[in-house]
Amino acid sequence: MTAYHQLERRFTRIAAVADAIGILNWDCQTMMPAGAAPGRVEQTATLHGLLHELQTDPRLEDLLSQAEAEHAGPDPWQRANLREMRRSWLHAAAVPAELVEASSRASSECEMVWRSARAASDFALLRPSLEIVLERQREVGAAKATLLGGSPYEALLDAYEPGGRTAVIDALFDQVAGFLPELIERALEHQDSLPDPEPIPGPFPLEAQRTLGEHLMRAAGFDFERGRLDVSLHPFCGGATGDTRITTRYAQEEFLSALFGVVHETGHALYEQGRPEHWLFQPVGTARSMSIHESQSLLVEMQAARCRPFITYLAPLAQQTFGGEGACWSADNLLRHVTQVKRSFIRTEADEITYPAHVILRYRLEKAMVGGELAVADLPEAWAQGMRALLGITPPDDRRGCLQDIHWPGGGWGYFPTYTLGAMTAAQMFDAACRDDAELLPALGRGEFGPLVAWLRRQVHGHASLLTTEDLIESATGQPLNVAIYRRHLERRYLER
Amino acid sequence: MTAYHQLERRFTRIAAVADAIGILNWDCQTMMPAGAAPGRVEQTATLHGLLHELQTDPRLEDLLSQAEAEHAGPDPWQRANLREMRRSWLHAAAVPAELVEASSRASSECEMVWRSARAASDFALLRPSLEIVLERQREVGAAKATLLGGSPYEALLDAYEPGGRTAVIDALFDQVAGFLPELIERALEHQDSLPDPEPIPGPFPLEAQRTLGEHLMRAAGFDFERGRLDVSLHPFCGGATGDTRITTRYAQEEFLSALFGVVHETGHALYEQGRPEHWLFQPVGTARSMSIHESQSLLVEMQAARCRPFITYLAPLAQQTFGGEGACWSADNLLRHVTQVKRSFIRTEADEITYPAHVILRYRLEKAMVGGELAVADLPEAWAQGMRALLGITPPDDRRGCLQDIHWPGGGWGYFPTYTLGAMTAAQMFDAACRDDAELLPALGRGEFGPLVAWLRRQVHGHASLLTTEDLIESATGQPLNVAIYRRHLERRYLER
Repeated sequence: MTAYHQLERRFTRIAAVADAIGILNWDCQTMMPAGAAPGRVEQTATLHGLLHELQTDPRLEDLLSQAEAEHAGPDPWQRANLREMRRSWLHAAAVPAELVEASSRASSECEMVWRSARAASDFALLRPSLEIVLERQREVGAAKATLLGGSPYEALLDAYEPGGRTAVIDALFDQVAGFLPELIERALEHQDSLPDPEPIPGPFPLEAQRTLGEHLMRAAGFDFERGRLDVSLHPFCGGATGDTRITTRYAQEEFLSALFGVVHETGHALYEQGRPEHWLFQPVGTARSMSIHESQSLLVEMQAARCRPFITYLAPLAQQTFGGEGACWSADNLLRHVTQVKRSFIRTEADEITYPAHVILRYRLEKAMVGGELAVADLPEAWAQGMRALLGITPPDDRRGCLQDIHWPGGGWGYFPTYTLGAMTAAQMFDAACRDDAELLPALGRGEFGPLVAWLRRQVHGHASLLTTEDLIESATGQPLNVAIYRRHLERRYLER
Repeated sequence: MTAYHQLERRFTRIAAVADAIGILNWDCQTMMPAGAAPGRVEQTATLHGLLHELQTDPRLEDLLSQAEAEHAGPDPWQRANLREMRRSWLHAAAVPAELVEASSRASSECEMVWRSARAASDFALLRPSLEIVLERQREVGAAKATLLGGSPYEALLDAYEPGGRTAVIDALFDQVAGFLPELIERALEHQDSLPDPEPIPGPFPLEAQRTLGEHLMRAAGFDFERGRLDVSLHPFCGGATGDTRITTRYAQEEFLSALFGVVHETGHALYEQGRPEHWLFQPVGTARSMSIHESQSLLVEMQAARCRPFITYLAPLAQQTFGGEGACWSADNLLRHVTQVKRSFIRTEADEITYPAHVILRYRLEKAMVGGELAVADLPEAWAQGMRALLGITPPDDRRGCLQDIHWPGGGWGYFPTYTLGAMTAAQMFDAACRDDAELLPALGRGEFGPLVAWLRRQVHGHASLLTTEDLIESATGQPLNVAIYRRHLERRYLER
């Protein structure tokens, strides 16, 4: 067996262990009885340990070098697979086992402190353990940077956004930050000139909500033979290869949040279910990056499901599902509900147009903290300043400020920028797809996602990690990420309605 | 760290991987979408491979020898733990990796053939692959026997029934086989002198069935903080350490099968949930053997839940749950339903008194096949002869004969005797418990399992694998397994009602 084929076998095993962890995590959030938590910690810690052993097996590096030497073969998938194998190895092998463990322990402990600190809005309580997490993250970043190149922050970012560079992101985000405050101001003014959304009276029985959600999932092409919809406190898309499981959280008195949550996770799920069959268990067969993943969810949720033609289809369907009556069920009113703009403190509650302000703030702060230019102690003040500059509001306390997200306590440094990179990518891809296929929008008006999903399968899902993120975007849309397209989308939706 | 403590850490990891497999298996049978099967095969095969690597790590044997040399310590739990560690190692290390794989492959293939062969009632179709499975099992048994002592069949049996010896089982089963045919004959005659059970008209809504089942689970002390009840095609008790998950299968038109199924699996679950907290992840903290496990399920299902006082409690509760009316809901009628005797061909449908005939037949046949005294080709004829001798009926085809069970195609040789050993143990333990606590039966009459479960916790569950099976039975009941007690139980229930 060639070195390359030995590598394929090893990476299949690695994928299988990662998949097992994926199912255990899904179970933990949907099915597991509360008292089983200690055992589950033991199981996932052990599997993570075994996974790390498989990923850092010294024999792996020999095989990689051998395969790279022997492998000038013509198959671009195999070449790309080898490139992704090397990348996976770099990320795993760059960090000494003791640092992996110390970093993981710091994050676990800090997460627990964070729950108390957030509840009490007490930043001083969090600070010492957050400083330890940051220190470990900087060490991890520095260790990876020696092999990956770039800065420690970029090395952390690379785990979510392979090849991501701060110079590129800075340039993009600076442009967005340049027009955003004024755009939000004008969007709010415009909104004030329109009627307020009329409340849609509930209750909305959970079973009916689930039926409607599953209807949209089916319409979008979600394959229930290879996936599920369940309920969890925090919605997510998870599971395993060929077993894509999404969740939502229902409220009796309001149905739009859960429904658009389902639609969002369905976008993630379509990406997972559309990965190329032949490469499913190989690194090249996995999703390209977190920004591309987020682009797929936002494409379906923000671009497709919030466009007027689709809302015109959805309004009577929802009315019929819940047996509602009155003008509040009009497409116009529904559209107003799902495109309402409001300056708010909490990222996860933010609307499409204020969301990037939350993200750019966090990106700038985490980059400065990892780079040693901002001390954890100065975070609350820097946060307040940034919120004022980008969004024009000042959080009344740290609970509604720098204590709101789990990412930093949990060790997810370098993740934040992918949200807004994803939103920009989604706008640009939807724009290209509509230009490529004139039938796409009319089909959405009939509740048909077929043309959109066909375009995504062809341009995005089917490529998995064959291309770099930049090449993928350029091959799909004809140009690199272009802030102007994103801006035009926001202006059309929020200034010209 | 001492060698012994290093072993504890290693066995905790081994338990965690086994637990992960347990959750994946539960998921496979309750939640997994059908199309995810290929990925799940990959995951569990990989985890089984990693588990085997952990169990056969050469360093483990060094540590065992070291710990055995250094460990004359006074703690009986630690000593017993070391004994069970050695046993676990023997079972894993005795079989070369290639044989593990060949045996597992033979069983997987034979299981698939078996599904077709059973459907077509075509033994000739199954025969070649069953011969391969038997050959691999004989090799496994022979390999283990060199380390464990005893015959190859006993080495296979030992995986389910540690220390089990055919001389002992033969003596017990020969006694049962000696009185059983006549007892069945007399039970049927006696039954004929009584009124037929009056049908209980349905339908029985599944939700109400579930509520009643959960009520009984709670009454029996099942801890829903550390377990669940779900639905699967084949009911089982599984999950992981501290996360005991049982299943049942409901039918709209009949509720007693599902309900008593829940009660049976609850007996298994109570054993799992009653294992000693401190030793949960260690070999000594696991269930003693399959016969003891089966004794716990049969104690709750056959001894407790089918006794007249409990049925007297259950009848009005069930009637109220389903809103039923009429004499068919009397305790007498319910009791007749759940103690009905009928000679039948299928083991899983057999009643309490004919069940041992099915088991003894299989035990004798599998022992003869592993011992080389019976060829696979001669199995159908030997089966028919055995059925006639033990049960007085001849299967009209192999589907209702030697093709009915998955155990042999699936590689579960040596498992069958534990069913009837479990039934005998259950009768003897219930007899002892009732003598130890005069309040036990009256409490069951009020739907209270407290005294019974307290006795089981003290005499069985809390010991886990501290004692051998023989010592456990003797310490709980004051004597070795005694066929007379089992016989008396059957005679009282089926001849004296």
